[in-house]
Amino acid sequence: MSEAAARRRGRGGGGAARRAERTAVNIETAKYIERNIPLFEVLNEEALDIIEQNAEIVLEEIGVNFVENPKALERWRNAGADVDGERVRIPRGLARELIKTAPSEYTQHARNPERNVVVGGRNLVCAPVYGPPFVRDMDHGRRYATMDDFEKFVKLGYMSRWLHHSGGTVCEPTDIPVNKRHLDMLKAHMTLSDKPFMGSVTDPSRAQDSVDMCGILFGEDFVRDNTVMTSLININSPMTFDEVMMGALEVYAENNQACIISPFIVGGAMAPVSVAGTLTQVLAEVLAGIAYSQIIRPGAPVIFGAFVTSIDMNSGAPTFGTPEASLITYGAGQLARRYGLPFRSAGSFNGSKLPDAQAAYESANSLNLGLLSGVNFMLHSCGWLEGGLVSSFEKFVMDADQLGALQNMARGVDMTENGQAMDAIREVGPGGHYLGCAHTQANFKKSFWRSELLDYKPFEQWAEEGERDTMTLANVKVKQTLSNYQQPALDPGIAEALDAFVAEKKASMPDAFS
Amino acid sequence: MSEAAARRRGRGGGGAARRAERTAVNIETAKYIERNIPLFEVLNEEALDIIEQNAEIVLEEIGVNFVENPKALERWRNAGADVDGERVRIPRGLARELIKTAPSEYTQHARNPERNVVVGGRNLVCAPVYGPPFVRDMDHGRRYATMDDFEKFVKLGYMSRWLHHSGGTVCEPTDIPVNKRHLDMLKAHMTLSDKPFMGSVTDPSRAQDSVDMCGILFGEDFVRDNTVMTSLININSPMTFDEVMMGALEVYAENNQACIISPFIVGGAMAPVSVAGTLTQVLAEVLAGIAYSQIIRPGAPVIFGAFVTSIDMNSGAPTFGTPEASLITYGAGQLARRYGLPFRSAGSFNGSKLPDAQAAYESANSLNLGLLSGVNFMLHSCGWLEGGLVSSFEKFVMDADQLGALQNMARGVDMTENGQAMDAIREVGPGGHYLGCAHTQANFKKSFWRSELLDYKPFEQWAEEGERDTMTLANVKVKQTLSNYQQPALDPGIAEALDAFVAEKKASMPDAFS
Repeated sequence: MSEAAARRRGRGGGGAARRAERTAVNIETAKYIERNIPLFEVLNEEALDIIEQNAEIVLEEIGVNFVENPKALERWRNAGADVDGERVRIPRGLARELIKTAPSEYTQHARNPERNVVVGGRNLVCAPVYGPPFVRDMDHGRRYATMDDFEKFVKLGYMSRWLHHSGGTVCEPTDIPVNKRHLDMLKAHMTLSDKPFMGSVTDPSRAQDSVDMCGILFGEDFVRDNTVMTSLININSPMTFDEVMMGALEVYAENNQACIISPFIVGGAMAPVSVAGTLTQVLAEVLAGIAYSQIIRPGAPVIFGAFVTSIDMNSGAPTFGTPEASLITYGAGQLARRYGLPFRSAGSFNGSKLPDAQAAYESANSLNLGLLSGVNFMLHSCGWLEGGLVSSFEKFVMDADQLGALQNMARGVDMTENGQAMDAIREVGPGGHYLGCAHTQANFKKSFWRSELLDYKPFEQWAEEGERDTMTLANVKVKQTLSNYQQPALDPGIAEALDAFVAEKKASMPDAFS
Repeated sequence: MSEAAARRRGRGGGGAARRAERTAVNIETAKYIERNIPLFEVLNEEALDIIEQNAEIVLEEIGVNFVENPKALERWRNAGADVDGERVRIPRGLARELIKTAPSEYTQHARNPERNVVVGGRNLVCAPVYGPPFVRDMDHGRRYATMDDFEKFVKLGYMSRWLHHSGGTVCEPTDIPVNKRHLDMLKAHMTLSDKPFMGSVTDPSRAQDSVDMCGILFGEDFVRDNTVMTSLININSPMTFDEVMMGALEVYAENNQACIISPFIVGGAMAPVSVAGTLTQVLAEVLAGIAYSQIIRPGAPVIFGAFVTSIDMNSGAPTFGTPEASLITYGAGQLARRYGLPFRSAGSFNGSKLPDAQAAYESANSLNLGLLSGVNFMLHSCGWLEGGLVSSFEKFVMDADQLGALQNMARGVDMTENGQAMDAIREVGPGGHYLGCAHTQANFKKSFWRSELLDYKPFEQWAEEGERDTMTLANVKVKQTLSNYQQPALDPGIAEALDAFVAEKKASMPDAFS
């Protein structure tokens, strides 16, 4: 053996490194991000005023549609709106008045109180990808998602240090009937994780099932007095509120459970091709939606949502991590703060088919933006691939690792004497180095964020270990994490009651697959 | 053929798509970025005051070393500093007084006046990677860089729409003797591109050669009156100014040519493990370096530089795209603006061995930061790989494409009536779509930034075309760009004179390889 080879062998060859990778276990979860840094604001007061005035014009003169929902129309009429067929025109100032009862922040309880999150203020809560019908991993490629995949994503979320929330439809379990899968999804979040989660919104009865299952998990009295779910209510942009989503919102608001009221916008298709025009429409839609939530129950917790992507005008494909989406998101954050509402936007958005450089550029653009734009609830913060069609196992752990960078960035600058480090500069002086100085010894463990995934090795060692790219390292990490997974304890009586509820519900209706 | 297959064939199979990729030519260059958006400021006034006071203490009480440079010590003594051996202690306020003659912005002229750049103010000029001894591409892997590689990078830079500057040592041409390669590198920038470029700093005589070659290219009179180079002077942190770099600075400052005065910091090794401590040292070093440039020639153009990376305390490896480096860079930008100096920082930094997801996450973190922290000159804005050891062909075009996102983000929000798009919202109304409306038709071509590299195709088409990842698409783009390269015209007399200068210089000295 050559001396060089012996030296390499001595510091641990590929086999040793891979064995070490398999042994590290970590089920610590960081508290939600509390920003100690300012926010980035792209609009001045004059621009915000113009957008607000324009949104009022949209509400008053154009109006919004509440579709196939006579009760909603009745409620709006009673609240003072001008209702014409399904069109609801909201007089200037009425929506702003109605939303005043919405809280500026709320606590979403988890079954483990240490995992409770406070949504609003300077906080940022990160939840995983939501909604993809497909999954992808290196071993089996792209395929329809199943309940087995779903459970794996919930486990990965539970094990992810920088993920504060278990999310909702982390993928669509397409092997379970459409009308029953919400039961299995909720049970998975409730039993495989102890982080907070989201409820079903695909039918009002499923929203009610979600509330009922929370009654079993938390106790009915607790659920009556506390928020235990944050669920996603999309607005059918432009300016259309459909009866399914509104029906789910009605159930949640009546039960004091939180909803994200979120325009779903592919810019150029569902909104104008301009930033200011899109912000105007977003604001009008959110004002109408949140006003409606407060008509249902004043004080019901809600989030100002904005799902924003732009369009490739050559092909019509949605595009992600683009500058226009960034500008809209920064502006939307300012609008949310103007009304004192928690804000949801940004995420690990990208249009790539693989967890490759495109996926990472586009995701990083949006993740950074999420921190600086004041997002309070970041859905899709990890695992998103292919424009939201795919939940990617590898990308889940890649993004979840990057959330650690956001969390540490949010700590801001320590200006204490220790942070100023003048003693270190004196001790080391010109031409020295800081590796061994007292200040470094006292502080280095907490000074620098360190990826638990990415490659920091010297080239030679990396080459010896097989020239693995990020996707390959992530594949190792997925398997390692799932193999280290330990289910959080749950009262067996509660687990049985959840099983019984799900079994009874399933038995009460025929399977439906569309 | 099945109907589905026929339909796919009809919209152009893999072969047609690949042929189309080979035919698009583009040698347009965008003007440098003029920000129409605010900057992100992480430090408050109190923090800035503390750092300034601490930096003055460092300069006065600890001092900096000017190594093997008796003339510099003499100059400092004459300027009022306390010189003890090679240690220069600068009384409180002296450095701040001396730097007042440094301009807040300057024009760097290119031989094509349309490519002139104004460095400072709200502008951002992007230049490529600088310094790697290795190159990498998909076809030949990682290898020592040669002059042939160098020329290819200059050509790629010339052809890149969002790159405003040709850079300097885009890779080290290791097949040319160390003492002669600056001649070939400069000639390549001067003849293969018409964008502005950087001069040699590896020896004062090579800086003088750079000035002399510019005399040939621009005319000696022109060079006497105008800045035609921006060159990189690294400070040997902590607080050491070596004779080679200072010698080059002396040549450039005497000739009114611009220099970046840049601490080179791997946090935890060359600076304290804290953000505030590092900023203090950065400020002290830059103040000393820029003060020295103004002692040489008051009014010489200079840039406040900050090359900042953190360290992995487990392995000692430098790490990139980290939150601590971000905080330091944001703070350094604020300090540069406090002194009215142009600012250099950020870039396509990453520690990955491949242009994969790690490379892209880390690079995107830093590129976004570059825009929002107020960087005026972004060196390494494309092509950086493996901690700066490698210039990557594929990554060059990947990053250069992302610079387009920065350029479009910098445009900010159009608040004109057209930008407000109220007519579009009225025209479309609830439940409609904007694709065909008048406002969209009038605006869509300029509304959304569009990547010229990344994949926006439907999954099926992408699969049919070979499931190419970003690196593979970039490899295609590199070859396409080089094959489309057209050399910008140059007066044959100037080209001959440059050849003659280089030949004569080379003949005047023996080869040196270290």
